[in-house]
Amino acid sequence: MSYKDLTPSSVIEYIKTFTDVFPAGAQLEVYEVGGGEDDGDGFVNHIYRVWDKTGKSVILKQAKPYLKLFGEGVPLTAKRNQLESEIIKLRSAITPEYLPEMYHLDPDNNLFIYEDCGRLKIMRFELIKGKRFPQFPKQMGEFLAKSNFYTSEIYLDQMAHKFLECKFMNPEMRVIMETILFLRESFIEGEVDLPAGDPNHLAMSDLLWEKRELRVELLKLRGIFMKKSECLVHGDLHTSNIMIDENEMKIIDMEYPFMGPSSSDTGYLLGNLVYEYIAWFHHEEGTKGSRKAYRQEILGYIRDLITEYQQVYTACWDQDAKPMYREYTEYRDDLLRTYIKEACGFAG
Amino acid sequence: MSYKDLTPSSVIEYIKTFTDVFPAGAQLEVYEVGGGEDDGDGFVNHIYRVWDKTGKSVILKQAKPYLKLFGEGVPLTAKRNQLESEIIKLRSAITPEYLPEMYHLDPDNNLFIYEDCGRLKIMRFELIKGKRFPQFPKQMGEFLAKSNFYTSEIYLDQMAHKFLECKFMNPEMRVIMETILFLRESFIEGEVDLPAGDPNHLAMSDLLWEKRELRVELLKLRGIFMKKSECLVHGDLHTSNIMIDENEMKIIDMEYPFMGPSSSDTGYLLGNLVYEYIAWFHHEEGTKGSRKAYRQEILGYIRDLITEYQQVYTACWDQDAKPMYREYTEYRDDLLRTYIKEACGFAG
Repeated sequence: MSYKDLTPSSVIEYIKTFTDVFPAGAQLEVYEVGGGEDDGDGFVNHIYRVWDKTGKSVILKQAKPYLKLFGEGVPLTAKRNQLESEIIKLRSAITPEYLPEMYHLDPDNNLFIYEDCGRLKIMRFELIKGKRFPQFPKQMGEFLAKSNFYTSEIYLDQMAHKFLECKFMNPEMRVIMETILFLRESFIEGEVDLPAGDPNHLAMSDLLWEKRELRVELLKLRGIFMKKSECLVHGDLHTSNIMIDENEMKIIDMEYPFMGPSSSDTGYLLGNLVYEYIAWFHHEEGTKGSRKAYRQEILGYIRDLITEYQQVYTACWDQDAKPMYREYTEYRDDLLRTYIKEACGFAG
Repeated sequence: MSYKDLTPSSVIEYIKTFTDVFPAGAQLEVYEVGGGEDDGDGFVNHIYRVWDKTGKSVILKQAKPYLKLFGEGVPLTAKRNQLESEIIKLRSAITPEYLPEMYHLDPDNNLFIYEDCGRLKIMRFELIKGKRFPQFPKQMGEFLAKSNFYTSEIYLDQMAHKFLECKFMNPEMRVIMETILFLRESFIEGEVDLPAGDPNHLAMSDLLWEKRELRVELLKLRGIFMKKSECLVHGDLHTSNIMIDENEMKIIDMEYPFMGPSSSDTGYLLGNLVYEYIAWFHHEEGTKGSRKAYRQEILGYIRDLITEYQQVYTACWDQDAKPMYREYTEYRDDLLRTYIKEACGFAG
C-alpha cells in the first residue's frame, strides 16, 4: 500500500497497521505540526504528532517528494529523510541521551517515527526569555566531542570512514548551507523576504559585507567548510534545533549531516550564542544588573562548552584512539588548537 | 562470452571481435608485459602489448579480480580498473597531450585498451642515466595546474564536485598510500622484503624515523592528505609513472585517483626529484663538474615546475574561475601559498 502523502487520518491508519508503537486498540489522536506555508518544516516535511489516552506521544516525519524551493524536478530529495533517520540511529549509538529515540523507519515512504520531545522547549525562545540551563555546556560539549571523535578516522577504520563520507555526502543540503552561510548575495537574491530593518543598521552591515578583506576571509572559511572531511557534522546546529529544559537536552533536525570539519558545528552554535549575548544589550526585560548577569551567563556557556569539549575529547582519545594515534598527544593537542581556531572563524 | 582472464591468444581474438582498433584482417602479435611475479604491474594487472605489421601498437590492461596482497576475499577491486579508465577519459578532456589515448573500454571484463607509449621512456631510469628533459617542468607544471584547477570547486559546480568526490572515493587504493607513505612500520611489517642496506645508513634512518617530532609532523601531513577534498589527484605520481622523451610527456598508472589536496601530487613528485638530486652526489658516471651540472639541472626542474604551475593556475583562474571567486585574487594567492607550503611537506 502506498503512503506517498499521508493525511492526518491515514497517519493513524498507518501507525496502527505497520507499527507496534502503541498498544493494540489504543485510541489515537493526531495533529499536523506547522502545516502553514511559512513554517520552515512545513516547507519541506509533513510532521504529525500522534498520542493516545495514556499521554504517550510520538512524532511522524514524512519528507515531501521534492524541495519546493527547487521545483518538482530535483531528484534524490527523498534520500534526505533516509539520511536523517540513519544519522539519528548512528548518533544514538554514540550519545543516546542527546537524541530523540527512533521507533520506526520506512524508507519506501520516506518517513520515520521518533520520540516526541514536546516536553522540552526550543532553546532559542528560552534564551530570549532569559531562562538558564546550567547543564547545557556540559551536555553540548560532551555531545560535540563524542560525535566528532567517534565519527573521525582517529577512531574509525579508514574504509568505514570513507564509506560514511560517501553515504552522507548529502550534496543538495550542503549546497544550501555553503551558499547561505558564506555568500550573502545568493541569500539576499533568493526568494526570502527579509523584514525591513533600521536603515542605519542595514547600511552599517552593508559596509561590513562589502569589505574585501572580509570576503576573502569568508572564502577561506568556506573552503575549510567544503573541503575538510574530518567527522560527521550536524550541519545546522543552531539554538532552534536544540530542545532543552533544566535537566535534559535533545538535538533535532538532522537533514544536513555530512563529513566536515570538527569545528563547524561548534562555530555555528557559538555564533548563535554570541548573537543572544549581544541581543541582551537591547532587551528591555529585567534590570540593567540582571541583563548583565544574563550576558555573563551566556558567556559562561561558551567558555564552559569549549572546556568540556576539550576534556571529553581528550578522554575519548586516551581511551579509544587507534594505537597509531594514541600516544601522539601532541597531534591531539594540535587538532584541538585547530578546532578552536576554526570554530572562532565559523562563529564569526 | 566471458573474458574473465585473458590469455595471449584470447587477447587477439578479443580485439578482433570486439574492437575496430586494428583494420579487419590485420595480423596481430601479442606480448604479455611484466608477467613475472616481481613486476609491480604483473602483481595486480595483466598488461598485453598488441601490434600489427604496420607498427601500430596498443596496450590492453585487464585487472585481476583480486589484489594478491589481500587475498581473494577483497571485493570492489575490479572497480579499480574502471576508475582508471574513467580518470584517463576525464583528464584527457583537460590535458589530452599528457594522457595516453583511450581506444576501448569494457567494464564487464575489467579491461581497457589504450595508446602504447612504448616510444617514450620511463623518466626514473632516464634520470639515473643523466638524460635531460628541458620541456618537463613546463609540461608537468601545466598538467598539474590544469588538472587541479579544472577538477576543483573553483571551476566545477558544487554538486558535480561532490559527485566526483564519491565516484573517486577509491578507499582500497587510498588505504595503501595512507599507510605506505606516512606510516613506516606498516610498510616494513608487510610482506615486502627490502634489500639489505648499509647498516650505518639504516641506523641513521631509524634514528630519524624514531624522532617523535617527525612522527607528529607526519601525522599532521597525513591528516591533510586524508581529509582535504580539494581536487582529483593522481595519487601515485612518481618518476616511474612518467613516460617521456625530449618533446613529449605522458602520465600513466592512474589506479589511485581520489579527491585530495592539490599539493599532494606535486609534493610526492618533488620528493622523487630531490631523491634523484641527492643520488647524483653518489653516482660515478661523468666528472665532478658534470654531476654538479646535472644536480643543478634537477633543481631547475623543481623551481621551474613550481613557477609554471603558479602561472598556469593563475591564467586558468583569470579565465575560468566561477564569478564568485574570480575577482578575489587574494584568495587565489592564499590557495597558491598553501599549495607550496603543503607540497614542501609532502616532498619531505
